[in-house]
Amino acid sequence: MPEAPAPPVLRRDPVTGEWVILAAGRSRRPHAPVPGEPAAGTQEPDCPFCEGREQETPPEVCACRDGDGCDCPGWKVRVFPNKYPILANRLPEEEAAGGGERPAYGYHEVIVDSPFHNLAPWQVGPGQTCLMLETYRDRIREYRDRDPLRYVLVMRNHKAAGAASLDHPHSQLFALPFVPPVVDAELAGFERHVSREGACVLCEMIASEEREHVRVVAASENFVAFCPYASRVPFETWLVPRAHQPRFEDNESLEEAAELLADVLMRLRNELGDPPFNYWLHTYPLRGEFRPYHWQLEIRPRITVPGGLELGAGVAVNTVPPEEAAAALRGAPGWMPARSRQDPPRRS
Amino acid sequence: MPEAPAPPVLRRDPVTGEWVILAAGRSRRPHAPVPGEPAAGTQEPDCPFCEGREQETPPEVCACRDGDGCDCPGWKVRVFPNKYPILANRLPEEEAAGGGERPAYGYHEVIVDSPFHNLAPWQVGPGQTCLMLETYRDRIREYRDRDPLRYVLVMRNHKAAGAASLDHPHSQLFALPFVPPVVDAELAGFERHVSREGACVLCEMIASEEREHVRVVAASENFVAFCPYASRVPFETWLVPRAHQPRFEDNESLEEAAELLADVLMRLRNELGDPPFNYWLHTYPLRGEFRPYHWQLEIRPRITVPGGLELGAGVAVNTVPPEEAAAALRGAPGWMPARSRQDPPRRS
Repeated sequence: MPEAPAPPVLRRDPVTGEWVILAAGRSRRPHAPVPGEPAAGTQEPDCPFCEGREQETPPEVCACRDGDGCDCPGWKVRVFPNKYPILANRLPEEEAAGGGERPAYGYHEVIVDSPFHNLAPWQVGPGQTCLMLETYRDRIREYRDRDPLRYVLVMRNHKAAGAASLDHPHSQLFALPFVPPVVDAELAGFERHVSREGACVLCEMIASEEREHVRVVAASENFVAFCPYASRVPFETWLVPRAHQPRFEDNESLEEAAELLADVLMRLRNELGDPPFNYWLHTYPLRGEFRPYHWQLEIRPRITVPGGLELGAGVAVNTVPPEEAAAALRGAPGWMPARSRQDPPRRS
Repeated sequence: MPEAPAPPVLRRDPVTGEWVILAAGRSRRPHAPVPGEPAAGTQEPDCPFCEGREQETPPEVCACRDGDGCDCPGWKVRVFPNKYPILANRLPEEEAAGGGERPAYGYHEVIVDSPFHNLAPWQVGPGQTCLMLETYRDRIREYRDRDPLRYVLVMRNHKAAGAASLDHPHSQLFALPFVPPVVDAELAGFERHVSREGACVLCEMIASEEREHVRVVAASENFVAFCPYASRVPFETWLVPRAHQPRFEDNESLEEAAELLADVLMRLRNELGDPPFNYWLHTYPLRGEFRPYHWQLEIRPRITVPGGLELGAGVAVNTVPPEEAAAALRGAPGWMPARSRQDPPRRS
């Protein structure tokens, strides 16, 4: 029997203070992608995420199903712990004196979009997308009061070049004991803007985007999708609620958001030809003192290799103006009917 | 004739305050790599970086040569402006009222390692590596007094999966009008540590690494290479001066640093089998108030695809403990003779 892998740990960078997750056991997982070489495509017969193979995953945490049962067929969205977690489900002990290492406490879950192996995220349609977003919401709520967790990040790696290790469309949830640096920097940015301007920076951006209608991709009554002004990669697109709302998980109904998300993913597919992509749900931290925030779902296609300037200096180099990207996406077929510049969607 | 591309601009992210370089013209450059598909390998006969094809690059800025001449054969290291720059060599005008956009003022140069197309960075050897490091130093010095430049970043993308667009080994220099976020975060970290502990955090790290000798890869009299405690990727390795020194460009002699760099690159090659990699020279900003700092050359092999957690949340997930990486690299053949645990290199 192979030796059990060491449990994942958090290590604090002595210089920046940022936490790194050291998950040595993960290097043994199957299908880990390497650059330039697509992960071995698990076809339906071998895929542990497909309906009918529920015994091959860790026991399910929850699922959307019409009838009763657990770890059996009949589900529409299914959630279970990641078999190769980067977080350990045990409470941290005391930090070793003088050391910067402690257990990487938290939860790492897989959220399988649908029972269908070959239905891409843009193919499942608004109804299934809604079940998926409701699952995101319910899982975030589940972790709301679990001290010392600080943040729940839900995200998707799509395709091997997008860092997905299995083909069957799925999302991942990370319940973390710290606020991720990118969200932390956003929180600081929201705070600076409120103290200077007395308003939410994202509320102002949304109003301005809707007024100009240059970077808007699509919109519904309560949600807008646009390519942000300082997009870090070509065709980066954000989906946001028009009304000021810090927490995604406060939404009782997600039908409209799901329709818009399905629409945007379909447009990206039709414009870029089935690109690898990632998206992240940036919502408010689980606890801590109040700070201004406005949730966003950030979608980033991966049509370029991140260069050294981005990875080692934090400086993004984007080669496609968001105005051009948005115009192309507005013109591409989506799930919703196209709207013209003359007829921008408005709040009712 | 195709329309001239728009000049690159800087855009400030309204939320985080970070600058993004929007360089639309760059999407037209040849050989831009796409994920999963290596860039078309430019063989020697077509390579504009090879000796004898100097007329195919922009006019050279400087070169190491034995004799006279310019833009002609006979050089050992050659520097010229990047043909597809992400920075525009013109001073910024006034920022548009209310806008977050201004010209991306700065310089983007190519530093060709050697005249030989097929000599990888670990093959050129200490002598040629020294000429290259001296060129880095001299180019940084060149920009020292050019207001309003704030930072010179020298880095390398190696191989298509490392985001290099041409095979001929080369480095890139970016003279920037702002301090890159990653360096800024480091500066803040050094400052915090000095105010708390009264000492340079990197000096302390180096002393501790040499004492423990667990993460040290190789060392010489004045320089040490080690895998940092909170490595963000497998086999990340830093090369640092033992003595406290904020600026790389203050080194009159770089022979010893070059020998160690050549050695570490050879070890990485022998352990990982010619991996794509990036490195960055993190030195002190060009100007601004004094802040504590200690320069490092950070090398990161790219043997995994950066996942969504890293790209969209800033949370690195590393699958190889730096202790294991360092042990493997210590055992791999390099340019310098191997040293044992019992015989750690010491300051004379």
